Amino acid sequence: MSGGEFELIDWIATRSATRAPVLVGIGDDAAVLEPAASSQLVTTDMLMDGVDFLSAELPALVIGRKALAVSLSDIAAMGGRAVTAFCAVAVPKSAGQQYARELHEGLLALADEFEVVLAGGDTNSWDGPLVITTTVLGEPLAGQPVLRSGARPGDVLCVTGALGGSLRGHHYSFQPRLKEVQLLLELARPTSMIDLSDGLAADVRHLCDGSGVGVRIDSTKVPLTPAAHEASQTGSGRTPLEHALGDGEDFELLFTLDPNDLERVQAAWKHATSITPIGVMTAELELLLIDAQGQPSQLPELGWKHHLAE
Amino acid sequence: MSGGEFELIDWIATRSATRAPVLVGIGDDAAVLEPAASSQLVTTDMLMDGVDFLSAELPALVIGRKALAVSLSDIAAMGGRAVTAFCAVAVPKSAGQQYARELHEGLLALADEFEVVLAGGDTNSWDGPLVITTTVLGEPLAGQPVLRSGARPGDVLCVTGALGGSLRGHHYSFQPRLKEVQLLLELARPTSMIDLSDGLAADVRHLCDGSGVGVRIDSTKVPLTPAAHEASQTGSGRTPLEHALGDGEDFELLFTLDPNDLERVQAAWKHATSITPIGVMTAELELLLIDAQGQPSQLPELGWKHHLAE
Repeated sequence: MSGGEFELIDWIATRSATRAPVLVGIGDDAAVLEPAASSQLVTTDMLMDGVDFLSAELPALVIGRKALAVSLSDIAAMGGRAVTAFCAVAVPKSAGQQYARELHEGLLALADEFEVVLAGGDTNSWDGPLVITTTVLGEPLAGQPVLRSGARPGDVLCVTGALGGSLRGHHYSFQPRLKEVQLLLELARPTSMIDLSDGLAADVRHLCDGSGVGVRIDSTKVPLTPAAHEASQTGSGRTPLEHALGDGEDFELLFTLDPNDLERVQAAWKHATSITPIGVMTAELELLLIDAQGQPSQLPELGWKHHLAE
Repeated sequence: MSGGEFELIDWIATRSATRAPVLVGIGDDAAVLEPAASSQLVTTDMLMDGVDFLSAELPALVIGRKALAVSLSDIAAMGGRAVTAFCAVAVPKSAGQQYARELHEGLLALADEFEVVLAGGDTNSWDGPLVITTTVLGEPLAGQPVLRSGARPGDVLCVTGALGGSLRGHHYSFQPRLKEVQLLLELARPTSMIDLSDGLAADVRHLCDGSGVGVRIDSTKVPLTPAAHEASQTGSGRTPLEHALGDGEDFELLFTLDPNDLERVQAAWKHATSITPIGVMTAELELLLIDAQGQPSQLPELGWKHHLAE
């Protein structure tokens, strides 16, 4: 079956050493994993050519890496450690097997970096565009996962890294914040958390909706990337802050802390990735942006929306 | 966000009651599942329009059902019970939200039938064709899963149901053999098992390769569907047996039994779906088809191959 699916599967299996907790990896009807002592996290993400990446402009390595990184970011956002990954692909027939291998090489390099085992998948070819679905299983680092629903009035809203302009490259090269969340959970327990995929303005709504609270974001505190400034300077018609609020795909962590924990976390923080307090949660179900003069305005409705026609 | 992804997600969440072992279902960054007492089965399958189904000819309900059924069949083939499902979709923008709902309705109806909880997913729209990825988690019914690797010389090769001509309808309407495998495992432990997705001739090779044995299939014993006969009679250029060997997507179970277990299993079998012994595993690494006169020939190289260009 030269050049066929089975040869590709064999190659992927060779590149994916089966180790704990994987008892049976690639090559049977399903993977077999050891019993899980703690509760389990499961996330699945589908990335499509022309929507989440542009295959014409990018090496397959980068696309495969991003596919896994998006799911790893979800596990980080639950306060988790990623354990196993599963990758289903539909590769254009014109791209060929070498392309499918490079895609998996990119994914596997990131998996290795975070000690995640590729335990299964599904390889297909078709006449359509490239599609990749990654499913990642993980476990909560601190016994219980951190949900979107635990924020309380008075909690401090924090964000890792800086935001905005991710389309200028960051949305391909971002590091899922698995290492940062590990340190964070050693220092304090966030009351709620989400990863920034849709953009700060959209994702903070999810935290507020999930927790039944409002938020006041200090616009002067939102950390801006150089890319947010560049995007603004090159005629986007948006301010750098608007890029930070609306661009999405930052894949930074947005979380809330008990105010009594903030100083300790900041003092003990040792990662290169910063943690910045940018606002406070409120009992009022308000979504406010406070400007440099202390004036509040409604948080603009920016952020990624995947619209399906009615 | 009327008409958008979030409304669809809310609807799916409402239709997917969170119950054990799901602690947190649809709506956070990842699902949270209870600790798993036994080892776990994980399978993932991607189905694409034009390859695995034809959206122009079929209701979305049927497509959604098939997407889940394919993964449930994999869990059955491991000797497992399906527990949770995750569904990632890319729906054409032209199809709209109602279409995406019907797709999920089809999937959820089958999930309900087998007491599987839809615990998460990812909904997307794009300009490409419909793609669905299902990931299903399960647990082995009898402590240990049944792999492809346990067949021994002298074991009897058996198949559930009848084979061939699945494109005439069966590949959409098939029942994953989860109930049959439950009874089978109560009666005896198969030494190896696989589900027939690529076709008998291709899939029996996987059992032989996995187990390091050969096989002699009695061509007169292979159970043929009416559809295999019909396909042959309507100018396919293949005999009904060739349809049974090569068509694929039967989603029946192919398994090996210790010969001492066969009579007991057959005597106690009470499902409408038949079990038929069709051959014997051999120490010689041969793949033989025995005709009505007892003459052996090489098993033809029929069966579905997903070719990727070099």
